[in-house]
Amino acid sequence: MKDPAVQYFKCTSRERAIFEAGIKLGTVYHQYVGIPLNQTSVASLENAIKESIMVQPFVTDASVRINIYANNKRPGVYKYLTLSGEMLDVSIKVKYEDSEVSAHLKYVEEMDYPLMYLDE
Amino acid sequence: MKDPAVQYFKCTSRERAIFEAGIKLGTVYHQYVGIPLNQTSVASLENAIKESIMVQPFVTDASVRINIYANNKRPGVYKYLTLSGEMLDVSIKVKYEDSEVSAHLKYVEEMDYPLMYLDE
Amino acid sequence: MKDPAVQYFKCTSRERAIFEAGIKLGTVYHQYVGIPLNQTSVASLENAIKESIMVQPFVTDASVRINIYANNKRPGVYKYLTLSGEMLDVSIKVKYEDSEVSAHLKYVEEMDYPLMYLDE
Amino acid sequence: MKDPAVQYFKCTSRERAIFEAGIKLGTVYHQYVGIPLNQTSVASLENAIKESIMVQPFVTDASVRINIYANNKRPGVYKYLTLSGEMLDVSIKVKYEDSEVSAHLKYVEEMDYPLMYLDE
Repeated sequence: MKDPAVQYFKCTSRERAIFEAGIKLGTVYHQYVGIPLNQTSVASLENAIKESIMVQPFVTDASVRINIYANNKRPGVYKYLTLSGEMLDVSIKVKYEDSEVSAHLKYVEEMDYPLMYLDE
Repeated sequence: MKDPAVQYFKCTSRERAIFEAGIKLGTVYHQYVGIPLNQTSVASLENAIKESIMVQPFVTDASVRINIYANNKRPGVYKYLTLSGEMLDVSIKVKYEDSEVSAHLKYVEEMDYPLMYLDE
Repeated sequence: MKDPAVQYFKCTSRERAIFEAGIKLGTVYHQYVGIPLNQTSVASLENAIKESIMVQPFVTDASVRINIYANNKRPGVYKYLTLSGEMLDVSIKVKYEDSEVSAHLKYVEEMDYPLMYLDE
Repeated sequence: MKDPAVQYFKCTSRERAIFEAGIKLGTVYHQYVGIPLNQTSVASLENAIKESIMVQPFVTDASVRINIYANNKRPGVYKYLTLSGEMLDVSIKVKYEDSEVSAHLKYVEEMDYPLMYLDE
């Protein structure tokens, strides 16, 4: 895809790919956290999040896993939970021109934090 | 389901069902608006919203349709859109004890407004 | 305000007020959960939520308190938290024609649940 | 702040700052879009968004302006609107070690798109 916004950026292709990866992960966390779910609905939500990531610019791949039992969470009095950041395990690949980067959102137990990071 | 919150309410069963229906529709609008989508991803999002409604207390049925072309919207420069209220056509049934109500979220053209309403 | 949607509803004024109250509380929960905050920013968020409730149809009053330490939560490795339902203590009044109702969103410890309820 | 996640990243300080800037802008868009507002409530929302950006890691500055009339939007039948991406004009500075970057979210009329970009 020719990028209609190219003149707004002062950065390398790799930096642009990294910026776009950050946007996509911030989007996942803040769009979906709060969604009511339980074990019967979790696959449909994983699928919807993955497909929504894939329609965004420069994304070449995405995987989404949700662990509703992360950090000892359990369905409550009404037999459901709401999605929290620590349940999410998301990996994306973003490519801008020749630069491709891989980024992740994953709960890191020793930090007790849903970390977004780049791994290459 | 026996309701663990029964003592917090001072209202009839029908009023409770109506309150719960309002909660569910407010939830749909404000949880999902903003999600990136296009025609390839729309079925997965309809499915995830429906399944998430169904896990919530007292819901007996739900249907979700998304019209990405509502109000003349079209995919933009990057070939996707973000979900807006006017794209949503949602119907739910909520039952509390013996009272069942039917509620809807639907774009009403003459009001230019995504209206939430009860129809019985 | 004359209600432009009156013909869509088959219910009493009190039922309409209750439905609208449910919508507003569902909105608060699902719009704001996930917002990064700490003790320095909490007052600005309480204020913004309150003002946003007040612009919505048929609302006559609103109060919003956020307890970032609810349910033993504490700022994490990066010195902030994200808003969760159990931090919220929200009360609203909604009036439709002559019927006014009072509704709440509040973490109920014995249910371990952020309950939305009507109290009159 | 010493970064507890440093070992998870394989990138330069500038790349890290860029990644974090992308996260923050994706967060603003997807957390707040959908909030009910009108001219009386807009200042409180600008303030809350700004303060929430400032509590996040590595942010050194933020400004937030909301134009509720962007793209010819107007309050509707019930005298309010909901926040959309085109209303937002957000600038942030993010610093990681010695690298500081400046990033923006702004509606670009010729693209008809709320663009997130880096300007240095």
